[in-house]
Amino acid sequence: MKISNLEELNTPCLILDKTLLEKNCSLARKKCAELKTILRPHVKTPKSIEVAKIALDNQVGPITVSTLDEAEYFASAGFKDILYAVCIIPKKLARLEFLQKKYDCVIRIVVDSILVAEATVDYSNSHSTKFEILIEIDCGEGRSGLYVEDKKILEISKIFSECNKTNLMGVLTHAGHSYSTDNKTEILSIANKEREDALAAVKHFSTFNNNNPIISIGSSPTMLFASHLNNISEVRAGIYMFWDLAQASRGICKIEDIAVTVLASVIGHNYQKKKIIIDAGALALSKDISANRFMPEVGYGFVCDSNSGKYLGLNISEIHQEHGAIDISNPDWFDNLPIGSLVRVLPNHSCLTCAGHSSYNILENNMIIDNWKRTNGW
Amino acid sequence: MKISNLEELNTPCLILDKTLLEKNCSLARKKCAELKTILRPHVKTPKSIEVAKIALDNQVGPITVSTLDEAEYFASAGFKDILYAVCIIPKKLARLEFLQKKYDCVIRIVVDSILVAEATVDYSNSHSTKFEILIEIDCGEGRSGLYVEDKKILEISKIFSECNKTNLMGVLTHAGHSYSTDNKTEILSIANKEREDALAAVKHFSTFNNNNPIISIGSSPTMLFASHLNNISEVRAGIYMFWDLAQASRGICKIEDIAVTVLASVIGHNYQKKKIIIDAGALALSKDISANRFMPEVGYGFVCDSNSGKYLGLNISEIHQEHGAIDISNPDWFDNLPIGSLVRVLPNHSCLTCAGHSSYNILENNMIIDNWKRTNGW
Repeated sequence: MKISNLEELNTPCLILDKTLLEKNCSLARKKCAELKTILRPHVKTPKSIEVAKIALDNQVGPITVSTLDEAEYFASAGFKDILYAVCIIPKKLARLEFLQKKYDCVIRIVVDSILVAEATVDYSNSHSTKFEILIEIDCGEGRSGLYVEDKKILEISKIFSECNKTNLMGVLTHAGHSYSTDNKTEILSIANKEREDALAAVKHFSTFNNNNPIISIGSSPTMLFASHLNNISEVRAGIYMFWDLAQASRGICKIEDIAVTVLASVIGHNYQKKKIIIDAGALALSKDISANRFMPEVGYGFVCDSNSGKYLGLNISEIHQEHGAIDISNPDWFDNLPIGSLVRVLPNHSCLTCAGHSSYNILENNMIIDNWKRTNGW
Repeated sequence: MKISNLEELNTPCLILDKTLLEKNCSLARKKCAELKTILRPHVKTPKSIEVAKIALDNQVGPITVSTLDEAEYFASAGFKDILYAVCIIPKKLARLEFLQKKYDCVIRIVVDSILVAEATVDYSNSHSTKFEILIEIDCGEGRSGLYVEDKKILEISKIFSECNKTNLMGVLTHAGHSYSTDNKTEILSIANKEREDALAAVKHFSTFNNNNPIISIGSSPTMLFASHLNNISEVRAGIYMFWDLAQASRGICKIEDIAVTVLASVIGHNYQKKKIIIDAGALALSKDISANRFMPEVGYGFVCDSNSGKYLGLNISEIHQEHGAIDISNPDWFDNLPIGSLVRVLPNHSCLTCAGHSSYNILENNMIIDNWKRTNGW
């Protein structure tokens, strides 16, 4: 791809600052190295092969995915060690088997019910195919998984131990509720419980199961705030690659760390209502407003200078499908941001904003040096 | 495509009920025929060639688009009369010229500023290319457009009248604020003002402009509630093809009219929290909650039986990127909706929900008879 400047891009589009991305990824690797655990980046945020490789220090390493589409996309690019971190259902086992065989990879799966454990064993036996499995533990998020004291953990581990094709590798837990607070003491306490529950859960395994179980935990906040991760095999985290205003609003990152923005053009000046209209609306930004709980001034995103990336003190106050509106109190902004000029919008939630787009324009030294594809869908 | 049943589909995915789609489209055509005006369907909702053709009674007719990607997609399928209903900026004129020439079509554009009017004339002259233009009028929505009394309407019309390549065809207005109420009298009053402002605006045109101007108005509610549309050339509306809970919550349609749903699989039973977990989350449903203002019980969508489409009295109370949670008060639902079973979710806002997907699975007589592609992006 030829090197270009921002003015040549079709708007709206995603801009990914490579320097910030590399810095964020490097810090997370350093943190996991200090904690003596493996980082298994969650690629549901970037859904990009190039970004995943940067997260893994330019290697093809262990990754976490949230859809079988992602599993297929990354497997086709040579990733061999994939964890599909959403509970599997029997209907999806055939595609899983197909992908594992086609790409000679392992797509480790997650279960939290006896029904699915039995169906997985049945499928393995009848198709003579192998699966690696983790049991999901609910460490307080209240979404998927079994409580650590649930007797079903033992029952499920027995079901898998009776089949030589299903390898119960360990447990997985996700402290997604670490996003619900901006209190550091509370995040630390959630991180501690995530670690302790995961470690406690494997004690309920049947004695026939793996003696050296995998303990998979994770979320970006608990990775960063963990006091130690002794005996934790791996950490799954994704948002740290890009960061966003939701994380900044909780003090998990700084606004200056956010690597992804939406480039938009000013398409109108509404003098009656003192609004600047841009061509990034609900589809380009998403309707996620999760930064607003702790930073109500965010609205649908913070508006930044397109060249410096510096926050202008303006926000997106209103969005329609293809229109965003910036309320201005000072009419000088009509001169500072004429029709046709560019702005960059910091997103509330990177995972959701990026999902509206098919690629990233890669920014380095104020130039667009490349375009990296994303996968979307299921 | 082979005929299949719902159980064979990969979840989550979109289901489009062809019978309801055809009924909704037929009613809108009938309404516009009664009102003696042309229906110019807004394809930003479906972004599908097959759906647009059904809206136009199996013809290739006039359409409205919200992005130049849509313009290109529909032009490439033979649509010749396209209105791009978002204000143009000078940078986008080159692509517009390219598309008009490549596909031998007209992509009519919208302006609301002197700066863009002048730039469009300059571009037409320097590239010897023709454009058809409407001036956008703000009839109360407060987004884009000029108030009907704004002197810039005359100035812009003079700018275009002095160039023989730019044809100012008329005015466009959009009563998007008709979505902000569930009061029929208020919608009627908004519909009246939309019509009156559009008609009044062309009186400010310079005498050199078109003597038979196009008056383009529209939104689904104002189309349905208009008492008359005398002298209105065309109506732009889109959501009526699919409907959604936002419209049902305002009494614009009935829940039974909604043609599009998200098919999802139950992937977990959380007995501790009395939740059923499905594999449709924020990316499959969108984070739009616009039905909640008038129907707070909607949450992120109403849950329906997958076969009958009948509302089960349950809603999606919580969403994560790839998880949706259904709170249940009665544990019988764990038996009624076992892991692996299917549900269909009625969306808050069809335009936003569909944008997360790349195609529609077409339902007719309880079978999936086809798969229709969507375009996404810009």
